[in-house]
Amino acid sequence: MTIDPAKLLASPPIKTRHEISRHDTILYALGIGAEELKFVYEEQLETLPMMALVMAYPGFFLRNPEYGADWKRILHADQSLEIHAPLPIEGVLLGETTFDAVYDKGPEKGALVYTSRRITSEDGTHVATATAGAFLRGDGGCGSTHEVAPQPHKVPEDRPPDEVVELTTGSNQAMIYRLSGDLNPLHVDPEVAKSAGFDSPILHGLCTYGVVGRALLATCADNDPARLKSMKARFSAPVFPGETIITEIWRESDTQVSFRARLHERNVVVLSNGVGEIV
Amino acid sequence: MTIDPAKLLASPPIKTRHEISRHDTILYALGIGAEELKFVYEEQLETLPMMALVMAYPGFFLRNPEYGADWKRILHADQSLEIHAPLPIEGVLLGETTFDAVYDKGPEKGALVYTSRRITSEDGTHVATATAGAFLRGDGGCGSTHEVAPQPHKVPEDRPPDEVVELTTGSNQAMIYRLSGDLNPLHVDPEVAKSAGFDSPILHGLCTYGVVGRALLATCADNDPARLKSMKARFSAPVFPGETIITEIWRESDTQVSFRARLHERNVVVLSNGVGEIV
Repeated sequence: MTIDPAKLLASPPIKTRHEISRHDTILYALGIGAEELKFVYEEQLETLPMMALVMAYPGFFLRNPEYGADWKRILHADQSLEIHAPLPIEGVLLGETTFDAVYDKGPEKGALVYTSRRITSEDGTHVATATAGAFLRGDGGCGSTHEVAPQPHKVPEDRPPDEVVELTTGSNQAMIYRLSGDLNPLHVDPEVAKSAGFDSPILHGLCTYGVVGRALLATCADNDPARLKSMKARFSAPVFPGETIITEIWRESDTQVSFRARLHERNVVVLSNGVGEIV
Repeated sequence: MTIDPAKLLASPPIKTRHEISRHDTILYALGIGAEELKFVYEEQLETLPMMALVMAYPGFFLRNPEYGADWKRILHADQSLEIHAPLPIEGVLLGETTFDAVYDKGPEKGALVYTSRRITSEDGTHVATATAGAFLRGDGGCGSTHEVAPQPHKVPEDRPPDEVVELTTGSNQAMIYRLSGDLNPLHVDPEVAKSAGFDSPILHGLCTYGVVGRALLATCADNDPARLKSMKARFSAPVFPGETIITEIWRESDTQVSFRARLHERNVVVLSNGVGEIV
């Protein structure tokens, strides 16, 4: 049993509906470690753009047997986010998730599957698009739907970054973050983490992504959530709750930044090939 | 305008209904800084007994003009909690809040008003009673309904405590705690805190109380929530988020402990005259 790329692309969109309250918007902000008043106080609330990543989230849909994926061997490879209109602080969001492309890397490696979620508000405004690349280690050899996989963005490693931001995560960071909807026990249960090959529960990749988004906002956008228009990066290693994430940022133009994130505690890059648009 | 003690005691109970989910139970635990798996993981969940303090909570009802209180000058003076049956991890709780007694301390001081909330599950089981003493600084001279106010429990300060437990609060502690229902801006908004005479937002008294409850559970009850049957203490000073709370515990008998809490950072007692029952 393996995936059938043509069938995936032909499958109907996964539709989701998600009602968020100000409480949810605050809980997301706390989940990625934000403490600024405007992100945690219902009377002056603004929504962090990275919250689109949990809006109208369809759950771990690749586990659905109809897709035929070897779901236990899936890794979240990369993630992009585009903001098209201001995110609401409360209200109903609708999601439509579709399969965009499958790139076969061969039987020994796996297959890279891209899905995107179009997020709209109830009045039909297209607010955001979240595109995820999943690496299906058990589904290589399935064939590709498109010829050349997208090339990762190159950060200018030959020169020092223009900004370096250290943001600490709490030992309870994954515990808070998971209340925004991703209840995968890998992020809280030590037994599940051990059986997956980790010494202890790891932080959600999208939580790390949110922390890095905070670093971009704080350094390059005067912490104005409306100014971050897009970000894209690859997941390169897990973070453990309590570790400090160092985001390195290169200013490429008036609106483009490159970035990557590494850890203070261990010599490892956790988010790589990052590119963002800030207006 | 001032309170009429006889009228308060004759007023009908304030009825509340509160549906809690496992998510809420976890959020409460995170709000008081707990990180033990059984308090934060829905698959193995146990409810912290101190959570009864936020169950079926009627809000700041003394602000209701029908009671005639000078509500801006009210302080939370003391709090007791009795657990009668195991607390649910999810489900509907019903509350009935009544006025129990008013002790007039004179026009210069104020009046001490006791209210209690009887908390039952939907099947009628009486699970907990929460009794709060409010000090109405603007309502002294109103007369008393009972003769002698309850005397505060004396902790044996003449001998060193048997247990000393340090528990740190996070800089985001009040931000998380308030999502369990007490949205008083005093605990998040610096402007509101300043106008109330504080340099910055203070932690909820009941959050401090919950942290001290964790200290009692961890040292005297093998962290088994079913073993803590009651606790009672006076609020003596506010805590700022990020400060470390040191709980001093004296074992008085097989089932009784005395306790008080002070801060690591400042030489101040924040919770005094504590007494608890642990079976």
